[in-house]
Amino acid sequence: MDLIEGLAVKNDRKILLVVLDGLGGLHGNGKTELESACTPNLDKLAAKSELGLLTPIEAGITPGSSAAVLALLGYDPLQHRVGRGLLDALGVGLDVGVGDLCCHVNLATTGPDGRVVDRRAGRVPTTLSEQLCICLQTAIPQIRDVAVTVRTVCEHHLVVVFRGPDLSDLVSDSDPISDGVMPRKVEALGPPAVRSAQLVNEFIQAASRVLGAEPSANFVLLRGFGQMPDVRSMPERFKLKPACVAAYPMYRGLAKLVGMEVLETGDTWESEVQTAHKHKSEYDFFLLHFKETDKAGEDGELEAKQELIEQFDEEILPQLLALKSDVLCITGDHSTPAVMGVHSWHPVPMLLSSPYVRPQVLVGEFGERTCACGDIGNLRSCRLMGLLLAHGLKLRRFGA
Amino acid sequence: MDLIEGLAVKNDRKILLVVLDGLGGLHGNGKTELESACTPNLDKLAAKSELGLLTPIEAGITPGSSAAVLALLGYDPLQHRVGRGLLDALGVGLDVGVGDLCCHVNLATTGPDGRVVDRRAGRVPTTLSEQLCICLQTAIPQIRDVAVTVRTVCEHHLVVVFRGPDLSDLVSDSDPISDGVMPRKVEALGPPAVRSAQLVNEFIQAASRVLGAEPSANFVLLRGFGQMPDVRSMPERFKLKPACVAAYPMYRGLAKLVGMEVLETGDTWESEVQTAHKHKSEYDFFLLHFKETDKAGEDGELEAKQELIEQFDEEILPQLLALKSDVLCITGDHSTPAVMGVHSWHPVPMLLSSPYVRPQVLVGEFGERTCACGDIGNLRSCRLMGLLLAHGLKLRRFGA
Repeated sequence: MDLIEGLAVKNDRKILLVVLDGLGGLHGNGKTELESACTPNLDKLAAKSELGLLTPIEAGITPGSSAAVLALLGYDPLQHRVGRGLLDALGVGLDVGVGDLCCHVNLATTGPDGRVVDRRAGRVPTTLSEQLCICLQTAIPQIRDVAVTVRTVCEHHLVVVFRGPDLSDLVSDSDPISDGVMPRKVEALGPPAVRSAQLVNEFIQAASRVLGAEPSANFVLLRGFGQMPDVRSMPERFKLKPACVAAYPMYRGLAKLVGMEVLETGDTWESEVQTAHKHKSEYDFFLLHFKETDKAGEDGELEAKQELIEQFDEEILPQLLALKSDVLCITGDHSTPAVMGVHSWHPVPMLLSSPYVRPQVLVGEFGERTCACGDIGNLRSCRLMGLLLAHGLKLRRFGA
Repeated sequence: MDLIEGLAVKNDRKILLVVLDGLGGLHGNGKTELESACTPNLDKLAAKSELGLLTPIEAGITPGSSAAVLALLGYDPLQHRVGRGLLDALGVGLDVGVGDLCCHVNLATTGPDGRVVDRRAGRVPTTLSEQLCICLQTAIPQIRDVAVTVRTVCEHHLVVVFRGPDLSDLVSDSDPISDGVMPRKVEALGPPAVRSAQLVNEFIQAASRVLGAEPSANFVLLRGFGQMPDVRSMPERFKLKPACVAAYPMYRGLAKLVGMEVLETGDTWESEVQTAHKHKSEYDFFLLHFKETDKAGEDGELEAKQELIEQFDEEILPQLLALKSDVLCITGDHSTPAVMGVHSWHPVPMLLSSPYVRPQVLVGEFGERTCACGDIGNLRSCRLMGLLLAHGLKLRRFGA
């Protein structure tokens, strides 16, 4: 039993954790996306909140999405490694069993020399992706004695699940992460995974034959192999009744994994907020996840990311405040600076509002550099949950 | 051998660690108790000191007193769990042996339905508490083959020590911590403690019969079971000759546990400072502990706490500066915001003065929010000792 689990008690206070995916940024013209954005509501809230920076994993470590969100939910990603493929499989509603091997798949474009031209195949429309998925599923129902299930997540994102004897997720990715280079061969990272690596490479070969004639999505890149881990749930550890409001399947899968109720919601911010309002009396912890800021960052769209933050400030935040949670935390899961166009290691600005904060009166703005002067300091993301529970008066005293 | 122990060297430099119990606070009218207090001497010192915040245990974790002070002395409370009862027993001068089971006892008031009306029985005067203690000791000299020793610590605080075969401190508390609820039954937290739990429950029943006719202190609440742990002393770990100046028994007990010399002193601040002056040439590390600020916080007396801080600033600090220690650190063991009336998880302001500081030149005030911007950042309390030794030039270089 960990420290928090030994101290957690149930009460009626409500905690709302709002995650703007990839919120943290870097300076474009001297200011980050968040600092450049006109955010009067966030700034007003910051002046009566505690501020700090969250480090998703450790200093200098750039997280994948699932590791970053897992940390925010109180699970140290260095202890709980969850393959993205597992989360995608759960997110699209596949029934994953113990021993199944799940993997995230990018539809990608390769050139005549085999090099990756576009890792996202121009962000294939979901409708086309679904057609290609049916082709793959029909052509590759199984490999040797292993059943294969392929599903579209959205756009160029697919998920594949292998079900059969003696599978292992100790295999390397084929996705080289960069364009302009050759896809990698999947390799076993340990003796128990030799057969799994062979099976996966056979799947990649078979898929490339099926897709070979496609003009754009002519190849598959695999990364994030995973099997079901053994984690204690949020209700067990934190005595919470937690709900997740997220449109994007992976986050829904992650939420299921840690025992959250996953609420039906639409894929707009507006719809997510309505979902939270509708169910507000039923749960004592809400995770609201907004994906779009990260997409803008990954696409290098500095102004688009800034405008999304402004939209959040003007349209969404007032509705979140109307939920009247006892504890409100607004942060990101990681940084995705538009000037870099990828996830980065930079710590993420974080704002915490409750009746028990020490407001940073000298600060009138919510931004990376004001948060660096905050009372909370620089905190590992996986420690945030302890702080949220404390502000909800949900932790007993430690020690004599 | 830990990192610090491997690097520590002896020299003549003197370190003075001043602990204002429960120093950290929350905003009343926008400012904390410390920020509201008029503290020209502390502010002047802060301008030429390094500032930071101390987190007693981990983010969000509210510490008990012993865990918090243990951390300040360089012992990670997550590794060294010390039951409060053990500290009380040492503090009142009981001769505790290996295997003895010690426990803190609150004299409390329960109503006709058995619920706790006042966990502190109106803070029973020590004289009455001592009379009741004699009644308990006379009526309950032993339970089965286990000898029972009961002593008053002060006011409603008692300590009980059980001496006999096969005792274990793996038992739960009976103190429910809140008023208005039933006391808990003491339960074994593991098979070796089943008999200990039975013995303790029998003691509670016997004590309730002895006290039943009392108008106020008619019940006992037990918490903080502990046995003597195996810790390496401060002289062994830090090559220090340390002395403790504290009026309150628990802190004296804690000091003995880690190998400090406990100096005879009166129970006023003035008396404590005189004690430090009298012995200043004999030791190279002094812990000065002032309890009253915590009491004011626990009683919700915002102005009283503020006035005590002002009294410290005006009367005590000049005398402490006259000690001319090479390293002076002023902090608290934890926060006790008067607006909450209990210990809290909030980090504690800390000031460190030595010839080797980076002064916070932009800061002219000692307060929670100026400390949040300090050079030291937000440090776990158990890391403070390393910093104090460093400023005393008592640590060798690490690594080649």
